[in-house]
Amino acid sequence: MSKAKLRAATVGGSADDIESAFYDALQKGDLDKLMACWADEDDVVCVHPGGPRLVGASAIRAAFESMFANGTIQARPTRVCKVESLTSAMHNLIEQVEVMMPDGPRQATVLATNVYHRTPQGWRMVVHHASPGTPQEIQEGMDGTQVLH
Amino acid sequence: MSKAKLRAATVGGSADDIESAFYDALQKGDLDKLMACWADEDDVVCVHPGGPRLVGASAIRAAFESMFANGTIQARPTRVCKVESLTSAMHNLIEQVEVMMPDGPRQATVLATNVYHRTPQGWRMVVHHASPGTPQEIQEGMDGTQVLH
Repeated sequence: MSKAKLRAATVGGSADDIESAFYDALQKGDLDKLMACWADEDDVVCVHPGGPRLVGASAIRAAFESMFANGTIQARPTRVCKVESLTSAMHNLIEQVEVMMPDGPRQATVLATNVYHRTPQGWRMVVHHASPGTPQEIQEGMDGTQVLH
Repeated sequence: MSKAKLRAATVGGSADDIESAFYDALQKGDLDKLMACWADEDDVVCVHPGGPRLVGASAIRAAFESMFANGTIQARPTRVCKVESLTSAMHNLIEQVEVMMPDGPRQATVLATNVYHRTPQGWRMVVHHASPGTPQEIQEGMDGTQVLH
């Protein structure tokens, strides 16, 4: 099976479907499913909260591999703002992340911009830029989490 | 009308032109020029380093107005990573920002994702997500700043 067919078989559908697959892969620690969400472009970029920018699939894969070695990432996307065109979708959202601390699980809030392009292989992620949330987003989360997918 | 003439008739030109106009407006404190860069969409998003997310033109305008009341923003885009399609452009870049401190100017490093969509009005910004740079980006800046526009 060709690389393109293999990818198409793994993840398909809309930008929303790719976003769901991305967060599902984080929650399950599924590195192959996670990497299948990304576009086959040299300049895809990933920024984890407080981390350096990672450019290209190899750097992104290595960082997620290290993270998964410490466990899965229980991040849920909420309050998604979208600007969509025929071939691109910009999603900005608030991630509610359950972090394991010595005294039990704690909730962290992260601001993330995810951008998807419609490529010959289907919709694919071209950037995931995440940064720490502020008291405003934490308050929004407490006001009642609106999970959109 | 030919495609070339149609392009010439649209305001602003390419995504790169809008990006140049955005940083020029920051450097000059030109609020109207800055706001003209944004798409006419409810869900455009702006995140300043360490700040909350601002959704919609009114919130974004008010935040920049407050910032300009304290002076202009001397931010220069460098080391731009791009993933482009016919109607969308994702730029991730390192901003070198000159910040005035009591003992003189200091250089700050910011990581920014800027996304542009080709709209009926021309190319327009749909998100500006900025977060503090890390030692990696500061080092890259010291290695020789590569200004791409």
